[in-house]
Amino acid sequence: MTPLNTDARLKILPPDERVGYAVIGLGDLTSQELYPAFHLSGQSRLAALVSGDRDKATQQARQLGLRDDDVYTYDELERLKDRPDVQAVFIVLPNAQHREFTERAAAIGKHVLCEKPLSVSVQDAQAMVDACQNAGVLLMTAYRIQYTPHHQAARDLMRDGTLGRVKLIEATDVQVEPDEGQWRLKRDMAGGGSLLDVGLYCLNTARYLTGEEPTEVFAYTHSTPGDPRFTEVEESVSFVLRFPSGIIANSFCSYGASRQRSVRVMGEDAHLTLDPAFDYTNLRLRVGTEDAVREHLIREVDQFALELDHFSHCVLTGETPFTPGEEGLQDQVIMEAIYRSAREGRPVRLDRHEGQDVFRGTPPRPTERERS
Amino acid sequence: MTPLNTDARLKILPPDERVGYAVIGLGDLTSQELYPAFHLSGQSRLAALVSGDRDKATQQARQLGLRDDDVYTYDELERLKDRPDVQAVFIVLPNAQHREFTERAAAIGKHVLCEKPLSVSVQDAQAMVDACQNAGVLLMTAYRIQYTPHHQAARDLMRDGTLGRVKLIEATDVQVEPDEGQWRLKRDMAGGGSLLDVGLYCLNTARYLTGEEPTEVFAYTHSTPGDPRFTEVEESVSFVLRFPSGIIANSFCSYGASRQRSVRVMGEDAHLTLDPAFDYTNLRLRVGTEDAVREHLIREVDQFALELDHFSHCVLTGETPFTPGEEGLQDQVIMEAIYRSAREGRPVRLDRHEGQDVFRGTPPRPTERERS
Amino acid sequence: MTPLNTDARLKILPPDERVGYAVIGLGDLTSQELYPAFHLSGQSRLAALVSGDRDKATQQARQLGLRDDDVYTYDELERLKDRPDVQAVFIVLPNAQHREFTERAAAIGKHVLCEKPLSVSVQDAQAMVDACQNAGVLLMTAYRIQYTPHHQAARDLMRDGTLGRVKLIEATDVQVEPDEGQWRLKRDMAGGGSLLDVGLYCLNTARYLTGEEPTEVFAYTHSTPGDPRFTEVEESVSFVLRFPSGIIANSFCSYGASRQRSVRVMGEDAHLTLDPAFDYTNLRLRVGTEDAVREHLIREVDQFALELDHFSHCVLTGETPFTPGEEGLQDQVIMEAIYRSAREGRPVRLDRHEGQDVFRGTPPRPTERERS
Amino acid sequence: MTPLNTDARLKILPPDERVGYAVIGLGDLTSQELYPAFHLSGQSRLAALVSGDRDKATQQARQLGLRDDDVYTYDELERLKDRPDVQAVFIVLPNAQHREFTERAAAIGKHVLCEKPLSVSVQDAQAMVDACQNAGVLLMTAYRIQYTPHHQAARDLMRDGTLGRVKLIEATDVQVEPDEGQWRLKRDMAGGGSLLDVGLYCLNTARYLTGEEPTEVFAYTHSTPGDPRFTEVEESVSFVLRFPSGIIANSFCSYGASRQRSVRVMGEDAHLTLDPAFDYTNLRLRVGTEDAVREHLIREVDQFALELDHFSHCVLTGETPFTPGEEGLQDQVIMEAIYRSAREGRPVRLDRHEGQDVFRGTPPRPTERERS
Repeated sequence: MTPLNTDARLKILPPDERVGYAVIGLGDLTSQELYPAFHLSGQSRLAALVSGDRDKATQQARQLGLRDDDVYTYDELERLKDRPDVQAVFIVLPNAQHREFTERAAAIGKHVLCEKPLSVSVQDAQAMVDACQNAGVLLMTAYRIQYTPHHQAARDLMRDGTLGRVKLIEATDVQVEPDEGQWRLKRDMAGGGSLLDVGLYCLNTARYLTGEEPTEVFAYTHSTPGDPRFTEVEESVSFVLRFPSGIIANSFCSYGASRQRSVRVMGEDAHLTLDPAFDYTNLRLRVGTEDAVREHLIREVDQFALELDHFSHCVLTGETPFTPGEEGLQDQVIMEAIYRSAREGRPVRLDRHEGQDVFRGTPPRPTERERS
Repeated sequence: MTPLNTDARLKILPPDERVGYAVIGLGDLTSQELYPAFHLSGQSRLAALVSGDRDKATQQARQLGLRDDDVYTYDELERLKDRPDVQAVFIVLPNAQHREFTERAAAIGKHVLCEKPLSVSVQDAQAMVDACQNAGVLLMTAYRIQYTPHHQAARDLMRDGTLGRVKLIEATDVQVEPDEGQWRLKRDMAGGGSLLDVGLYCLNTARYLTGEEPTEVFAYTHSTPGDPRFTEVEESVSFVLRFPSGIIANSFCSYGASRQRSVRVMGEDAHLTLDPAFDYTNLRLRVGTEDAVREHLIREVDQFALELDHFSHCVLTGETPFTPGEEGLQDQVIMEAIYRSAREGRPVRLDRHEGQDVFRGTPPRPTERERS
Repeated sequence: MTPLNTDARLKILPPDERVGYAVIGLGDLTSQELYPAFHLSGQSRLAALVSGDRDKATQQARQLGLRDDDVYTYDELERLKDRPDVQAVFIVLPNAQHREFTERAAAIGKHVLCEKPLSVSVQDAQAMVDACQNAGVLLMTAYRIQYTPHHQAARDLMRDGTLGRVKLIEATDVQVEPDEGQWRLKRDMAGGGSLLDVGLYCLNTARYLTGEEPTEVFAYTHSTPGDPRFTEVEESVSFVLRFPSGIIANSFCSYGASRQRSVRVMGEDAHLTLDPAFDYTNLRLRVGTEDAVREHLIREVDQFALELDHFSHCVLTGETPFTPGEEGLQDQVIMEAIYRSAREGRPVRLDRHEGQDVFRGTPPRPTERERS
Repeated sequence: MTPLNTDARLKILPPDERVGYAVIGLGDLTSQELYPAFHLSGQSRLAALVSGDRDKATQQARQLGLRDDDVYTYDELERLKDRPDVQAVFIVLPNAQHREFTERAAAIGKHVLCEKPLSVSVQDAQAMVDACQNAGVLLMTAYRIQYTPHHQAARDLMRDGTLGRVKLIEATDVQVEPDEGQWRLKRDMAGGGSLLDVGLYCLNTARYLTGEEPTEVFAYTHSTPGDPRFTEVEESVSFVLRFPSGIIANSFCSYGASRQRSVRVMGEDAHLTLDPAFDYTNLRLRVGTEDAVREHLIREVDQFALELDHFSHCVLTGETPFTPGEEGLQDQVIMEAIYRSAREGRPVRLDRHEGQDVFRGTPPRPTERERS
């Protein structure tokens, strides 16, 4: 693990000059990934915890060196208005709550970094974009992979001609969701099944790597009959995207299969593999031709810290995040089309968007891609 | 490389007790793979060459230790009737010629081993099955992978419960077909593009591993606009198969992307990867869970020799080959449905076939799976 | 990256209950690895910086959220006596300074965690052990790899019989030291060449994995003639250790070869490979037999945080560290024998030590070896 | 598997123009590897079998399409004098018999290809070289790896500067010899233990890759006390070679550890790994720097066929084999020094030989290194 202290990276600011965050939602992702990420970041500071469980939050705050009055319950969110040292919130709640908390945070003038998926519907996602725009605060969809060195290197290899003309993309993200009671398996909390959680990585990565927007989608969904976990939401989705340049992307996502997270890009001169592609560490990037397979050894940096610091940099400079609300909204549009295709048993056309990266903002400063 | 001389394998017969073959078509596959395979086989003997080019054939015959009068031109095929030491033919011709030569060989009482795809249409494939049945000779589709230890081990791992319930299959076979003049790029010779050649590996492997027959297919095809290689046949196909047990199989094939040949099977307990999956040597089989990835080290045997000897064994015993004409015909049916789906932009239903391995004959004797 | 917050790991204490450290020496290791490690630890707190360069130290202190008066120059070390919140020092200085700063820290009642090698000679190392014992403070040699999950798993596999009787060990640690001016290439600062830095990993790992002490050593050293980097210290060492159980360990270390860090243990039933073995992240552990190679997927935790927290736990409980000064002293004894063997061109006998782990203290609490 | 029929390879000759061989000794290597190799060769023809067991030999001859009078007992070897179609013998007998059969074959004017090790002592090896020289026949030591594309590519990478100046070599060849009764474990048959069989691969490869001759060796041997397999010959040897250019090579061989066969070359710019290095198929060659690891995909050709055809080419042209008797003799000299070093517990000096490849003859024609 490497701190963010080299010249090519964002500057490390003294703690009191960093952007202060209130984290809303203290589940596993927060405690296992975000707390360390704040420690490893250079422009972001954890300033407050917002939770439904004051005792749990207070206990965590003490471990983190925060004061008891840095803890807020969900009801007390609006009291953050009086905390000028808290400029942003990081929403890490079940999908269905993203809209409400985004609107409430925007209403008190806080910038919003929101976990993916942005919301549970196009309608809600659009409302979130609108709320932040009207309040004059930034909204960023927390698409971690668009900020990691391995994915950035993969994107470069697609664009610098190493692969030749790209023809096909395969993206897979499957895992077992074992717990029947998990909110991710409840339609009203999650808004959908494996597609909104793991499948979104496949979709978002295909869009990120190509820089294009798909024009048509076809999908199948499947749930194992009788499996009590999949009565409200789908277990698996197979979807195919067509892009304007002719690229076809095949994707698989599932909550019912042993973990696999990979991306393969097939060009006329070479192919590129990210496997594992979506893990928090130990990503591997290989490029193969008929003569050789080359594994690029890329130094890893805490992915959440990179994501956090990009947003902090935007808060400090006023730049539009690379993955703003609009980027999350577009995936929501496509995911609704995927579900429609599966429901109606036919391909579904999408609005055509010309150009590259049409829903993205200022690119993240290139992180130095050092050797591990 | 290992000769087939252990007890668990088919017996090595003295040369004059082996099944004698006339090979029809002396292209690269014949000279680079089949000649060595005959040398390595235990029940098969190369007895005659049939070619359009008598000089080339005579030269090769001499290198192989055959006599000049073991050489026949295509016109002279029927003279093999007078060669009782030639019991079978191996057809290694462009797809569109498979029917004619199968019918002619059957008419003179020779058993037929025919390269894949069996033919260029359901109609022709059916005619080949009928011709051989009427003539009382065996017809086998040369599906090499159904006779190789790595694929057999993969199939066992699917059936013995190691993977848990299988949910998804990914199969990819892409390569660059660089030569615009290649017969594989001519519709009247090949009957189609990448699907009939490399895509058939994906289709056939998904059917072989599951033992099931797909009930529905959806497909996209794509050819790079302006590429002179793909004016008659398609460059790439993405197709999705649904199987009765709920398994979904995503496949990619292409003549326009750097070589990749892999199969991944995703079960609820583990996943299985064959990569490379369809090469002649150096196949790799791995099984992964969240705790470990296990690479099975399986001793390789010449794949073509295994295939040949299975057919010879059937000729000697009268058993039905594991991959008879009907097995090839069924793939032809599905490939026509794939093309229809792509043409009509909608899923296409297939006839339902209950049971396991409904188009297959006597399984190959288990080859000993030794360590390499 | 995983925080240390599960039950199987050391408890996360509130910051004011953690052991406070003064870090002495602010080079790359400190800024790139130790600062993040303190952030990720659960029982350790960075409380003061000791440096020869007050300005640099002050700048880093501010980035870290420390106060300006948490900064001390080397001369001011003794002022830490008045800081009861600083219970320990972490010495990250050139080897030749380890003794002086250990003695000074012990004299003011601070526990000492000292980077490896413990010192530049047996004599100095013994003096450090004595000084800490006399002062009643703990001394730990910072042997990171003895606290990492991958090495612990490797040791378990050696002891639980998975490998069968172990016969041979290969350990390699080579890298390029490009900078002629580096203190590591100066005899009076480093005390030796590649052996004391990278070669020590090979030596210490062989001792750790076997739990035994070598009884004889043979070594060659080599420096490329005319290379200005290697006028004072050796470039490469090849050394062979014999252990009482019959295990032979071959090792290579060098400052002149492209980075390779690996360990292989060969048993009668299986072999075990750690490759890379000594990196800070992305370690890989594989166990192979003739039938299969199994890669164990082990969740990584910040290695420096594990090491730090082990020492903090000892400070809080009074237990002897697993790698106390005596453990570092024993390596010093063996390294002197290695140099003597190379110098005299003959094997050198070592004192026989019966038993397992004779120089080690209380084992670290088992970290939970989770999947990555 | 690829036949040897491309322009870059040796020409495929009609069977009656190839060099005819009598194979002496029909053990597993002969039946499992050499018979197929003869089938796959282009200039070599199996013409006679010489065995102690006429029935077994006759049975194998029939399977191979040979006549009953192509079979000879050991006593009948001299009758081959009357077989002008047999120009060479391939000796595949226990080491201690190599000398006798070489001398007998030379005496009747047959060229000799002899399995490695050339013999059981320097004295016997020298006698073999002399016998063949006096009789005017060629003698080649069957050092398979000096004829394989992967090793040739490794040697090229060492010499073309890819690795930078080479510093260190590691070579390992260990396996379990389970059968107490095996002739390889009898001193009078084998002449030594693991060193003469598997250790010779390490030694010969280090010499082949560097092209240099070692000037000094140090070695330890070890046999597990009480293991009945190792009462006559040693189980394991660790040996270190010093080369004139400063390269140090560490090697391990054993009959008591789970199979591992690898070579690693460490240069200042890159390292090279062959792993597995000595298997008959599926060799892997990788070159790594700090930025990337590149696996070279090299098309494999039957290794024994390459070796055979090199010797046949020499028989037909009169050229000196690349690995003549002198090459095998030099390894015998070094192996005796290794044993002496272990016995006397001190390094042993070797005669200095300046120049490159001083014991080698005409290089094999470059095989085309195609992609697999």
